[in-house]
Amino acid sequence: MSKVKLQAPATEMLLLLEELAVFSAPGPGVTRLLYTPEWKGAQHFLQEKMAAAGLETRMDGVGNVYGRLPGREAHDKVILTGSHIDTVVHGGKYDGAYGVAAAITALGYLRETCGQPRRTLEAVSFCEEEGSRFPLTFWGSGHVTGHYDGGEAADCADRDGMTLRAAMAACGYPASGAAALREDIGAYVELHIEQGIVLERAAQQIGVVQAIAGQRRYTARVGGAANHAGTTPMGLRRDALAGAAEMLLWLERAAQDAGDPLVATAGRLETYPGTPNVIPGEVRFTLDIRHSEAGMLEQFCQAAAAACGGIARRRGLTFALEETLATAPAPMDRELAERLEQLCSEQGLTHHRMVSGAGHDAQLFAPRCPAAMLFVPSRGGVSHAPEEYSSPEELAAGLNILTALLYELAYL
Amino acid sequence: MSKVKLQAPATEMLLLLEELAVFSAPGPGVTRLLYTPEWKGAQHFLQEKMAAAGLETRMDGVGNVYGRLPGREAHDKVILTGSHIDTVVHGGKYDGAYGVAAAITALGYLRETCGQPRRTLEAVSFCEEEGSRFPLTFWGSGHVTGHYDGGEAADCADRDGMTLRAAMAACGYPASGAAALREDIGAYVELHIEQGIVLERAAQQIGVVQAIAGQRRYTARVGGAANHAGTTPMGLRRDALAGAAEMLLWLERAAQDAGDPLVATAGRLETYPGTPNVIPGEVRFTLDIRHSEAGMLEQFCQAAAAACGGIARRRGLTFALEETLATAPAPMDRELAERLEQLCSEQGLTHHRMVSGAGHDAQLFAPRCPAAMLFVPSRGGVSHAPEEYSSPEELAAGLNILTALLYELAYL
Repeated sequence: MSKVKLQAPATEMLLLLEELAVFSAPGPGVTRLLYTPEWKGAQHFLQEKMAAAGLETRMDGVGNVYGRLPGREAHDKVILTGSHIDTVVHGGKYDGAYGVAAAITALGYLRETCGQPRRTLEAVSFCEEEGSRFPLTFWGSGHVTGHYDGGEAADCADRDGMTLRAAMAACGYPASGAAALREDIGAYVELHIEQGIVLERAAQQIGVVQAIAGQRRYTARVGGAANHAGTTPMGLRRDALAGAAEMLLWLERAAQDAGDPLVATAGRLETYPGTPNVIPGEVRFTLDIRHSEAGMLEQFCQAAAAACGGIARRRGLTFALEETLATAPAPMDRELAERLEQLCSEQGLTHHRMVSGAGHDAQLFAPRCPAAMLFVPSRGGVSHAPEEYSSPEELAAGLNILTALLYELAYL
Repeated sequence: MSKVKLQAPATEMLLLLEELAVFSAPGPGVTRLLYTPEWKGAQHFLQEKMAAAGLETRMDGVGNVYGRLPGREAHDKVILTGSHIDTVVHGGKYDGAYGVAAAITALGYLRETCGQPRRTLEAVSFCEEEGSRFPLTFWGSGHVTGHYDGGEAADCADRDGMTLRAAMAACGYPASGAAALREDIGAYVELHIEQGIVLERAAQQIGVVQAIAGQRRYTARVGGAANHAGTTPMGLRRDALAGAAEMLLWLERAAQDAGDPLVATAGRLETYPGTPNVIPGEVRFTLDIRHSEAGMLEQFCQAAAAACGGIARRRGLTFALEETLATAPAPMDRELAERLEQLCSEQGLTHHRMVSGAGHDAQLFAPRCPAAMLFVPSRGGVSHAPEEYSSPEELAAGLNILTALLYELAYL
């Protein structure tokens, strides 16, 4: 195949990111929650930008916005690229938005430079991924991939008691999002900030994602005996917190021994009754375990449950694990990942094969079509915060690789 | 000295305990907080009971109630016995109340059986010890021993925002409690439930307290880096909770190694931000350390601070300890403790020398006059709960030893 020299206009993309960041609720950073006025403003703004880039635009039944560059070979499936437009509360201006802005910029540039592609390209701005307003995630890509069927999921409510269904209606969307389902996606490519510190530490410009980690979340309960801190000798205690501490250290050590990409995190721990002069009679902690291979993930979770149970028994405590979330690992398409590495080499960009420990829209597509994902470095690994930052050079490098891959997929 | 056969009427005392338990706010167990209507009712009821037992009664300027059996040798100092009438929220009917009911029963019985003593005896129902309504403790015995001087302590407020000063005024007490100070106490004897499980486990009937443990309370802060639970490899974490877990296990092991009566307790632990998918960036936990010997207490606290600091440094975490409470150990009078042991032997009661890990009014008297304290078993070690229980036989045994000691101190 013949190579062309592609150089998408990074300054346009950077400007678009700054313009997008204005659509935010008050407060530090960017807050753009699903179906709020600032969210609606951002999606309409993007639709205009797509139109200005010469793309055919439309908004589907749940608020996903598409910009289409039709190919000559209309029978081929669509090559889709993008990310999500919603943010966490007081988030940054790159998470999600970067992938959307890059998609629009790349497609506009390809249309202008290379004309009509053989295969149809689409940019997408998914309505929701973070789960920041309603207690569910992937509301956008989940509809597109058939994960939501317009049923009872919309009965859930935000902190103010407004149901998702009511919020949709107020924005003018029908309660059923079935119209959002697509069977015509042939490949999905997502560009995103890393949200971790691996690329920065490794001093690499592009992360080529091999898989998005599967994830298990649990609530653990350790039961002991709440007794007087002064009158209960050390030898007569059944201290739920001391037991939990031993479990946490086991988990840390076992996760280190298992090696990357396994991670295990206890993010929240609560003591009951939680009084300074009472030995904790109960402790609850959350457990978040991730790995890119289903077998390894399962094996670690089973070992953790057994080890914590053994610690509890030896201390005369009770132990119970409740699973609150389970997502399977999502391997990215091997051929697309190899093409990304090849493109990095051709463009003189350093790259790093890695697992995404964070969830992304790409994981919804991976079981249905070839999916690819690439990362650029996040300064200090900081994300989901106003301080989230990637340099213009880093963002431009990611845009160039994305553009080159889309070119190969749609034009050659 | 000639021994008399003393047998105080335990059934009267048990009836008094049941009558006292009626003075309670609604809800499970007994709730009798300082300067509430139920508290006021209980103190007036006790004053009537004291009068009915032939004692000269009075209520002092903060609401302590006394019943006096004047001795022939009026120049001698008073032998005082009793405990406190307030409870925790949803407490039991024995904590504090037992020592008050036993004191009144013993003095009434001695007056009736043995007539006027050589030295003056007084029963006391202290207004407050628990710290359950206002953020201070020992409001009763503290005034009697000069710990409170009627100053700014009364400016503190309860959960409803009512100041202690206003609560006193509403009950008819002057804001200054200086009138409660006493310089005429020659000895203090307190009978109490153990509130621990030591006597039950040792199958002993009477606990002879050697000392009330000194206590240190701290708030510990462990600082790390709050990062994404999915994107931060185990090797790049500064997990404040994992660090705190290592500290807690060190504390448990070191306290076990130090041996009784040292106890170390982390009763409350909080994680920040406390989100399941974020590595804890900060952990705060309370630390309660007690020992009966000042030197040992100091030594352990210093070792704990050094060990926790070392763990933090090794993990790249910060560590800070803030002291929130420090009370010195209060040794009980050795001669009185030996007399109590002798009396147990004479009455065929098993006894156990022990340290009180809990605080008691006796610790306020210990620096000022000979003080003695004796315990009866608490079923399952449970206290500060509606399930608090000691059997009639156990309660009667304590009453008998108290009566015998008071007889020796006042009549011989």
